[in-house]
Amino acid sequence: MDKSIFEFIEEHREEYIEWLCKFCEIPSVAAQNRGMVESRDFLESLFAQALQTKPEILPTRGQPVVYAHLAGKKTTTLSFYNHYDVQPEDPIELWDSPPFEPTIKNGKIYARGVADNKGNIIARIAAIHAIKQVMGELPIDIKFIFEGEEEIGSIHLADFANHHQDKIQSDGCVWEFGYRDADDRLQVSLGVKGMLYVELFINGANTDLHSAQASIIESPIWRLVWALNLLKDKNDHVLIPGFYESIQPVTSEEEILLSRYILEENSTLEHLGLKQFINGLSGEKLKSKYLYEPTCNICGIQSGYTGEGSKTILPSSAFAKIDFRLVPGQKPDQLLKDLRTYLNVNGYEDIGIRVFGAEEAARTNPSEKIAEAVIETISTYSELPPNIVPNTPGTGPMYDLCQRYGIPSVSFGVGHFASYTHAPNENIRIEDFIENIKLIAALVFKFEEKMNEEGGVTSEAI
Amino acid sequence: MDKSIFEFIEEHREEYIEWLCKFCEIPSVAAQNRGMVESRDFLESLFAQALQTKPEILPTRGQPVVYAHLAGKKTTTLSFYNHYDVQPEDPIELWDSPPFEPTIKNGKIYARGVADNKGNIIARIAAIHAIKQVMGELPIDIKFIFEGEEEIGSIHLADFANHHQDKIQSDGCVWEFGYRDADDRLQVSLGVKGMLYVELFINGANTDLHSAQASIIESPIWRLVWALNLLKDKNDHVLIPGFYESIQPVTSEEEILLSRYILEENSTLEHLGLKQFINGLSGEKLKSKYLYEPTCNICGIQSGYTGEGSKTILPSSAFAKIDFRLVPGQKPDQLLKDLRTYLNVNGYEDIGIRVFGAEEAARTNPSEKIAEAVIETISTYSELPPNIVPNTPGTGPMYDLCQRYGIPSVSFGVGHFASYTHAPNENIRIEDFIENIKLIAALVFKFEEKMNEEGGVTSEAI
Repeated sequence: MDKSIFEFIEEHREEYIEWLCKFCEIPSVAAQNRGMVESRDFLESLFAQALQTKPEILPTRGQPVVYAHLAGKKTTTLSFYNHYDVQPEDPIELWDSPPFEPTIKNGKIYARGVADNKGNIIARIAAIHAIKQVMGELPIDIKFIFEGEEEIGSIHLADFANHHQDKIQSDGCVWEFGYRDADDRLQVSLGVKGMLYVELFINGANTDLHSAQASIIESPIWRLVWALNLLKDKNDHVLIPGFYESIQPVTSEEEILLSRYILEENSTLEHLGLKQFINGLSGEKLKSKYLYEPTCNICGIQSGYTGEGSKTILPSSAFAKIDFRLVPGQKPDQLLKDLRTYLNVNGYEDIGIRVFGAEEAARTNPSEKIAEAVIETISTYSELPPNIVPNTPGTGPMYDLCQRYGIPSVSFGVGHFASYTHAPNENIRIEDFIENIKLIAALVFKFEEKMNEEGGVTSEAI
Repeated sequence: MDKSIFEFIEEHREEYIEWLCKFCEIPSVAAQNRGMVESRDFLESLFAQALQTKPEILPTRGQPVVYAHLAGKKTTTLSFYNHYDVQPEDPIELWDSPPFEPTIKNGKIYARGVADNKGNIIARIAAIHAIKQVMGELPIDIKFIFEGEEEIGSIHLADFANHHQDKIQSDGCVWEFGYRDADDRLQVSLGVKGMLYVELFINGANTDLHSAQASIIESPIWRLVWALNLLKDKNDHVLIPGFYESIQPVTSEEEILLSRYILEENSTLEHLGLKQFINGLSGEKLKSKYLYEPTCNICGIQSGYTGEGSKTILPSSAFAKIDFRLVPGQKPDQLLKDLRTYLNVNGYEDIGIRVFGAEEAARTNPSEKIAEAVIETISTYSELPPNIVPNTPGTGPMYDLCQRYGIPSVSFGVGHFASYTHAPNENIRIEDFIENIKLIAALVFKFEEKMNEEGGVTSEAI
C-alpha cells in the first residue's frame, strides 16, 4: 500500500472529525423514529461529497437501508456492514455533555452513537475517500450496507438480505463494531451472539387501586416478580426447560482462541466500581462465560409509582424488558415457544409476551481470507498485536446478512474499552478514530493481496 | 336538632361546592412539597370567612398542622381529624379531566383529593358553619386537627400529638375518611390498619452497561427480583419470619361485626374488570382477609429502560416501593428489623432499606359514645342503615393521635365505592357531599345527647 494514503489521512483528520461530529448531531433513535430521515440525507450528501456517488436508499418494511457499490479494478469485493441508528440517550441526566452535541474533551469525542456506530461509518467512508483521492481508483470493489434498525433488533434485515442477495454478496464483510481492550489492544471479533428480546407484560384491575385493596385484589407486579423468578436462579442459571440443550459444544479450535483471548479483569472491575465478577468468577471460566454462554438479562422493569417519596397504590399493570443473548445452536423462535410454554405450565398464562427482536448467533472461521487480512493488517500497522475474540458477547444480524449466504465476516472498529456504548457519556478517542481510518485503508489492499494468493479457504469453498 | 339547619345547608349547597372546588385547585402533594403553603392559606381564609375564627398553624418537623378550637355551650368536645395533603396525580395521562381543575360531570366532582380528603374537610367546616349560622352558637366544643402529611405516612403526627396532648384531647374523634359501599350504604369504620412503607434499593456497576456484559456482571434488578420473591409466595403468604406471630386474635365481638359487614363481591369485581378475588376467595374468608389480615404490596418498581421499544442495557440500579398494611399486634419497628435480618440472612446485605412511614393499627370499641352517636345519626337521617366496618383495610395515624390517648374514633365520609381514591379520576357524588354535611351537623347534636345520657362507656372509662 502506498504510504501517502496514511499521510493524506493525517492531513485530513480535522475534516474527518468534522464529518463525524456533524453525523452525531442527528438524534437517529430508531426506537423512537427520531432523526432517521435526516441521517439518510446526511449520508447521501456525504457520499456525494466524499465518494462522488449517490447511494441507493433501499426500502424495507421499516427504516430503509443506505447502500452503495463502488467499482474497483479487480473482481474481489469487500463489504462493510454498519448501522446509522443509535440507542436512546436516556438516562439523559447522567450525561456530562448533551448527547447530541458532540463534545471534544481530553482527546475524546463524546456523543450518542459516536462509538456505536457512527464513528465506524465515518472511518470507513473516510478510508475509501483517502484511497480514491490518492490513487484515483479503488483496487477492489467496495460495498457499503448501512441499516437503520440495528438497535431495535435488525427486525427487517433478514428480509432485506433475502431480497437483495446480489447486492449483499461479497468475498468478505467488515462487521460494524470494534473496541480496544483495557490493555489497548484492538479486538478482532469473529462472531456475535444471537438474541431474543421480549417484553413481558401483565394487566390486573382496570385502574390503579388504593393499596388497602392489596389483601383481596391480585397484584400484576407481584405476579410478574414471581414469574421472573422462575426464569433464572441466583447462580445466573436460566431455568427455562431446554434453554441449554441445543447449544453447539465449543470446539478445540475455539478453546485455543479463548485461551489466547485477553480479558483485563482488574481494570474492568476497577473501572466499573465492582469488587468481583458474577459468581466470583475469574480466569478461563470467566472468559468462557463471557464469550460462549447465553444470558437472560432484565433491560428494564416498571410498575406503579416510581416518583419521590411514597404513594400507596396497587398498580394495575407491570412490564419487564428482557434480552436473551444466544450462542450458536440456540434458536430464538424455539426459545420463544419454550418461554411461552414454561409460563403457561407455571400458571402465568395472563403474562403476555411482545417480541422486539430475534437473531441467531454466528461465528467466522479464523482461516478465512478476510479474517487473515484483518489480523495481518493490524499486526503490521498497529502498535500492539490484535486481541482475537472468537465470539463477541454482543449481538448483531451477522447470521442473517452473512453466514446464511456464505459470507465470512470480521469485526473491528474505533471504540475502546471505556466507550460507554449504550450508556451515558458514550465516547471514542480521536487517535483511535484516525488509526482506524488508516487500518481500513490498509485492509483494502491486504484483502486484495490475500484474495490473489494461491490456496486457502475462500467463501465459495465452505 | 333543628331541621332548619338542613334547610340552610340545602340553600347554601352551591357555596359549599364552590369552597370544595377552590380547595381542590391547589395541588397539595406532600410527597413533592407542592401547594402546601397555599392549602394552609386557603384554610385560614375559609375559617375566617365561614367560622369567624383564625386557626393556629402549629409547626412540626414537616408540614404544619392546621388547628382550630371552637368553644360551644357544653363541656363535651368533638374533634375532627383530617389531612390537607393529597396523593400525587400520576399517571396523569389516565385522567379524563385535569386533576387540579375540579370538573363537575353527571352529578360528580372529579379532582385529586376531592374524596381523600378535601371533600371531608369542607363538609365538616360547612356543617359547623351551618350550625353557627342557624343557631348562633355551638352546642359542644369542636376541634379541627388537619395535618399535612397523611399521604406520606403522617411521619410527624405522633410527635405533634405527644407535644399537644391538651389540644388533641376530646370525647370522640370523627376520623378523616369514609365511603359508601357498592350497595350505597354508608360505611362506618371503627379502626384502621397500620403500615410500614419502605423502599428497597440496590446499586451495581457505576453506570448502565451494554447488556452483552450480563454474562459476567451482576445485575441489581435481578437481585431485587430474587429478594422480592423471598418476601411473599404465590398464595399471598408473607414469608418474613415472625410476620404473623404477634397478631392479636380476632375477638368474638369482631367476628360478629365481620359477619354483619357487607362486601359487595359481584359489583366490586365487575367494576374493576376482574373475574375473581385473590386466591379465588369469597364470603366470610374474603371479608376476613380484607379487614383482619396484613398485606405486603408493591406500590412501584423501576429499573433500566422503560421507554418504547427495545434498549439493550444492564441497568446499574433498581428499587421497589413496598407497603405493609398491619393489623393490631404487629409493630412496624419490629417488622423493619425482621425484614433487614431476613434480607441479610439470605445474602442481600447489598439491598438498602429506606423507611417512608411507620404506623400501628387501631380499633375502637363499638359501644363507645362516639360510635353509637355516628351509627344512630346515620340510621336516623340516611336512607339506608350503615355498613359497620370493624377495621378498615386502609391506614391512618389513629393509634398515634387517638388510641394512645384514650380518644375513641370513628370514621365516615363523603366518598363512594367508585371514588378512585389514590387513582386517576378521583371523584365524589355531589349528593353524597351534601348529605354528609347534614349528617355531620346532626352528629354534633346526637353526640351531645349521648354524652349527657346516664351510663355507657366514655373515653375516660376505658
